[in-house]
Amino acid sequence: MFENKDRTDLKNLGEFGLIDHLTSRIELKNESSNKGIGDDAAVMDFSGMKTLVSTDLLLEGIHFDLAYVPLKHLGYKAIQVNLSDIYAMNGMASQVTVSLGFSSKFPLEAVEELYEGMMIACQKFGVDIIGGDTSASKQGLVISITSIGYAKEEDIAYRNTAKEGNLICVSGDLGGAYVGLQLLEREKLVYLENPNVQPDLEGKDYIVERQLKPEARKDIVLLLKDLGLKPTAMIDVSDGLSSELNHLCRQSGTGCSIYEEKIPLDPMTYDTAREFNLDPTVCALSGGEDYELLFTIEQSDYEKIKNNPDISVIGHITEASAGLNMISRSGVVHELKAQGWNSFK
Amino acid sequence: MFENKDRTDLKNLGEFGLIDHLTSRIELKNESSNKGIGDDAAVMDFSGMKTLVSTDLLLEGIHFDLAYVPLKHLGYKAIQVNLSDIYAMNGMASQVTVSLGFSSKFPLEAVEELYEGMMIACQKFGVDIIGGDTSASKQGLVISITSIGYAKEEDIAYRNTAKEGNLICVSGDLGGAYVGLQLLEREKLVYLENPNVQPDLEGKDYIVERQLKPEARKDIVLLLKDLGLKPTAMIDVSDGLSSELNHLCRQSGTGCSIYEEKIPLDPMTYDTAREFNLDPTVCALSGGEDYELLFTIEQSDYEKIKNNPDISVIGHITEASAGLNMISRSGVVHELKAQGWNSFK
Repeated sequence: MFENKDRTDLKNLGEFGLIDHLTSRIELKNESSNKGIGDDAAVMDFSGMKTLVSTDLLLEGIHFDLAYVPLKHLGYKAIQVNLSDIYAMNGMASQVTVSLGFSSKFPLEAVEELYEGMMIACQKFGVDIIGGDTSASKQGLVISITSIGYAKEEDIAYRNTAKEGNLICVSGDLGGAYVGLQLLEREKLVYLENPNVQPDLEGKDYIVERQLKPEARKDIVLLLKDLGLKPTAMIDVSDGLSSELNHLCRQSGTGCSIYEEKIPLDPMTYDTAREFNLDPTVCALSGGEDYELLFTIEQSDYEKIKNNPDISVIGHITEASAGLNMISRSGVVHELKAQGWNSFK
Repeated sequence: MFENKDRTDLKNLGEFGLIDHLTSRIELKNESSNKGIGDDAAVMDFSGMKTLVSTDLLLEGIHFDLAYVPLKHLGYKAIQVNLSDIYAMNGMASQVTVSLGFSSKFPLEAVEELYEGMMIACQKFGVDIIGGDTSASKQGLVISITSIGYAKEEDIAYRNTAKEGNLICVSGDLGGAYVGLQLLEREKLVYLENPNVQPDLEGKDYIVERQLKPEARKDIVLLLKDLGLKPTAMIDVSDGLSSELNHLCRQSGTGCSIYEEKIPLDPMTYDTAREFNLDPTVCALSGGEDYELLFTIEQSDYEKIKNNPDISVIGHITEASAGLNMISRSGVVHELKAQGWNSFK
């Protein structure tokens, strides 16, 4: 990927040199960013607002495979994944810190690619990079991002406040990122067997992009604000619909009923899942990495969203004793078990 | 360290199980901690205050060696190192997020030891753990901590605001952590050559503790407040006095003169450095990991600190063109070069 002529050795640049190099183009855009990179800590002003903080750790060989993930995409995705947690509180993301660990054999150009993807994501979402850390790693690429945002107290949507009778909504469509991953894994195996075969991803742009370049749903948070609709509870879909419903219902002390036919699936997700002999519904329930927003609303708010093509009502909240259930297309009731991803397995 | 009988397999617990297990004893103590672990993001209220955020990445084989660092000490130190950055802004630390990556072969008991050290440090400093992430790692232990704090706007001490004529002060003593590391490295080599030889650390408690269990100087921030003394600039000593003076002067557009004889050295640091044929002054200038506070004050504030045994005045800020200099015991002027630690070398 990086030929010798394009390689700049990190050893010569040193840690402070690298930080200066990477951050020289950063301009703070948010009024709340009082002081960014360059001191012991960043300084922010959220007067009158609550401060929101979330953090994620992404490790090579666990969360990503550099064999098929371009570094620029990886940087972009790492930011999106983190911002998604702030939007899932119904808040606005405004800052991130970015900590990176990489082999000293990693050329500067590779670090730049990764950082470029992060900066593109931050610019697109109006977020400032206000701090971080860089280090050599003996252990492959390490990415740790903390996202910071704000919300008015009355706007924050927690996970534990869904109420019986609430409608369950989800943005966009589900399962695509997981099916995209299957496709990339397959092409990797083909490549390893015969490096002369070109990857066959033709016509699969959408689901490959769902995996490699997800978009956090800031637009949905803004839309709900425009509609004057405050979700009664909200969570982002990182581990799969089933796992998120389990978090939301367990914390709210409720059950739920969702309808298989209402789960939004893109036709490409559906068809490609079938090619892999996978059940498309299972991909949506247990696949993860869709970074859509799952939220509950009062029934009286249904009119506000019913014609929105980007929001699907997939069921409703029930009392806890009813359990968590999915009614299949054929009318059979299935219990929803959390089968979220477990990195330790 | 962990015999088979005491091993609980992380695979069975899973990621959410592990998080529940580790965090079950956490109680939020700070009024500003509105919502901690358990949602997409933590919620904090710093109304009327500025929010301070800093982050550090600690990687096995780069920042620590599990051969001689007990996990509980490592956890304790990881927190202290991060809080130090908030105190270096003259602020109060109030929350941290803790992200951990470790081999799935790491037993639960080892993770508990690490987390226990973190909780002890947090309790001692009145800081809440409000979020984080855990993951399997194919790559040794990964620790990423983000510390969050607050300060009134007028209290914040930046790095870039030192003025010509200001006195340069440092808390505690310097070089001990570096000399302690030399001692631990020597005993590790002895042990590797002959595992029957017991480590010889007798009478070296202080410098071993400086390396393994540093204490962030919250007490100095509180003391300065009590004295009604606002530093004109401040930074913590993580990479060595010389490197920090370079940051402070470069960002402030100044030079400095410090006096070798004024640099605070503990007698044990001095004697042990000599045993290793090291120059004790060089250990203080370039050793790092002391986590003391380096700050500048107006000359008119000298009376407030002159009798404090925990604060040393080591020199003064000069105009930029004079450069950064140390006047040696014999009166020779040496230029101070930043020889801070570079993890890429």
